[in-house]
Amino acid sequence: MSNWKLTLAYDGSAFNGWQIQPGLPTIQGTLQQAIATVTGTPITPATPLPQGSGRTDSGVHALGQVVSIALDAPIPPQSLLRALNSALPPTIRVLSADPVPDAFHARHSVLRKAYEYRIFERRPEGSPSTEEICSPFLAPYVWDCRWPLTLDPMQHAAALLVGTHDFTSFAAADPDLSARSTGSAGPNPLKTIYTSTLTREQGLLIYRVTGSGFLHHMVRNLVGTLAEIGRGALTPDDLPRILAARNRSAAGPTAPAQGLYLVKVDYPSTSGESL
Amino acid sequence: MSNWKLTLAYDGSAFNGWQIQPGLPTIQGTLQQAIATVTGTPITPATPLPQGSGRTDSGVHALGQVVSIALDAPIPPQSLLRALNSALPPTIRVLSADPVPDAFHARHSVLRKAYEYRIFERRPEGSPSTEEICSPFLAPYVWDCRWPLTLDPMQHAAALLVGTHDFTSFAAADPDLSARSTGSAGPNPLKTIYTSTLTREQGLLIYRVTGSGFLHHMVRNLVGTLAEIGRGALTPDDLPRILAARNRSAAGPTAPAQGLYLVKVDYPSTSGESL
Repeated sequence: MSNWKLTLAYDGSAFNGWQIQPGLPTIQGTLQQAIATVTGTPITPATPLPQGSGRTDSGVHALGQVVSIALDAPIPPQSLLRALNSALPPTIRVLSADPVPDAFHARHSVLRKAYEYRIFERRPEGSPSTEEICSPFLAPYVWDCRWPLTLDPMQHAAALLVGTHDFTSFAAADPDLSARSTGSAGPNPLKTIYTSTLTREQGLLIYRVTGSGFLHHMVRNLVGTLAEIGRGALTPDDLPRILAARNRSAAGPTAPAQGLYLVKVDYPSTSGESL
Repeated sequence: MSNWKLTLAYDGSAFNGWQIQPGLPTIQGTLQQAIATVTGTPITPATPLPQGSGRTDSGVHALGQVVSIALDAPIPPQSLLRALNSALPPTIRVLSADPVPDAFHARHSVLRKAYEYRIFERRPEGSPSTEEICSPFLAPYVWDCRWPLTLDPMQHAAALLVGTHDFTSFAAADPDLSARSTGSAGPNPLKTIYTSTLTREQGLLIYRVTGSGFLHHMVRNLVGTLAEIGRGALTPDDLPRILAARNRSAAGPTAPAQGLYLVKVDYPSTSGESL
C-alpha cells in the first residue's frame, strides 16, 4: 500500500456535494468509482474512501481540493493522473497526484485553507440605474446579487474578521449539519482567520479568506453578512456584537453555494510534501 | 399585436437544442413558456412559437441568437426584458428586446451570421510533452482536443473557405436533419463565406466564421476538417477536392457541439432596426 495526495478541481454544479451518498452523484463517490476503474479493484464495503480536506456542499466548486487515498497498485504518478482523468467526467479533474508519507491525511493534517467567494453585481457601485445582465456562462459560478453593494464598509468588515474568534454565529444552524463535521462532539468554534479581503475584479466582487479551519457554511455566512453590510442593513461596527452573540440568528443569511470555491489547502511541509 | 426582436445568450449544455420538443428542455420551449408567463397568456396550440434565426443543436451555445415574436400585450421594452429574464432560468438571458416592423422575421430576414468555435489544446504547439489539463470550468464550453494541432496549415485552409462554394460535403449526412432546415425542398448548398479565421488566444484555438447562411452541422464539419489538417491527416490542398466531391464522406468528422457558439446575426438595416 502506498499513500497518495491528489489535488482536484471540480465544477460543483452537477454534484450533490463532496460526501458520498447512495444513488446521488457526489465528488467522493465519483472519485471512488474512478479509482476502482483505474486500479481494477471492485468496490466492496471494505474499500477505503478517498478522504477530502473537508466536505464541500452541493453546488460548491473547488480549484484545489486535496484528497488522500491509500492504493495497492504500484503506478507512476503521471500515469495515475492521466488514468484518473480518463476515468473521471470532465467536470472533475485531478491536477496533481503525489506519493506522500503514510501519516499524511487530507483532513487531519490540514494547516490552512483558502476559499474564494464570487459575487456578480447587477448594479455595480457608481453605475447607471440599468441592471447588468449576468451572463448564462457566469451564472452557475457566482452569486447574482440583486441589490447594490457599497464596497468600503464591506472591506472594513472583512478586515475585522482577521484573528482568532468564536465563529458560532457563522456556523450552520442545523445541528445535524454542524455535528457532521467532527462527529458527535461538535466542532471547535474557535478558528483563526489569517487573511480576509474583498476586491472588485473584472466585474465581480471577490471575497478571499484563509484560515486554520472553517465551520460548516462559515464562508457563505460571512459573505451573507458582508452583503448585509454592503447594502447598509448592518455596519462593520455590528461585527463584534454578532461574534459575541454566539448565535446563528445574529448574523446575516447564507450566501448561495454556487459562488463558493475551495481554492487551496496547505499542509505542514513534513506531511504534505512529495517523497 | 406588435412584433419584437429579442437577442438571447444561452448556455446550451442543459438543453436539447433550440427546437421545441415535447417533454424535453429546449431553448424555444423554455422561451415560449417564459413569454406565456410574462404576458399572462396560457399556451394553446394556436400560440405562436418564438422564431429563431436558426436552430442550434443540443449542447451548442449562443452569445447572440435572434428571435422574433408577435405579442399582444403593450409593454415597454425594458420591462419586457426584465420580466423575461425573471421568468427564464439563469442559463438563458435576454440581452435586448426591441420593437421591430411586422415584416421582420428572425429566420427569413437573416443577412449574415457569425459563429465561433473554441478548441482547447491539450498539447499546444511548441509545448513540453506533458498534457495540459482542461479545467472543469472550461470543459462544457470547448472541444477538448486530444492531439497536437499545427496552426499554420489550419489558418491557410480557413482562408481558402472564403467565397461562394457548394458546401454539400460539409452538410449533415442525415437526410432528415438536412431537410429540416428549409422543409422538404432541402437547403440550398451554395453559401457565401465572408470571413474565416483561426487564432490562438488565451490557451484556446478560436475559429471565427461569418457567412450568408450555414447548412446543418456545417461549422462543426468545417472545424472537424480543419482539425484533420491541423494533425496532418489532410492538407489545405485537399480542400478544393473535398468541396468538389459534394459528398459528406469526403470531409473530416463533426467537431463536438459544446465548442460552438452562435455569436451574432445581422439583418438588413430596414428590417432589423428598432422603430
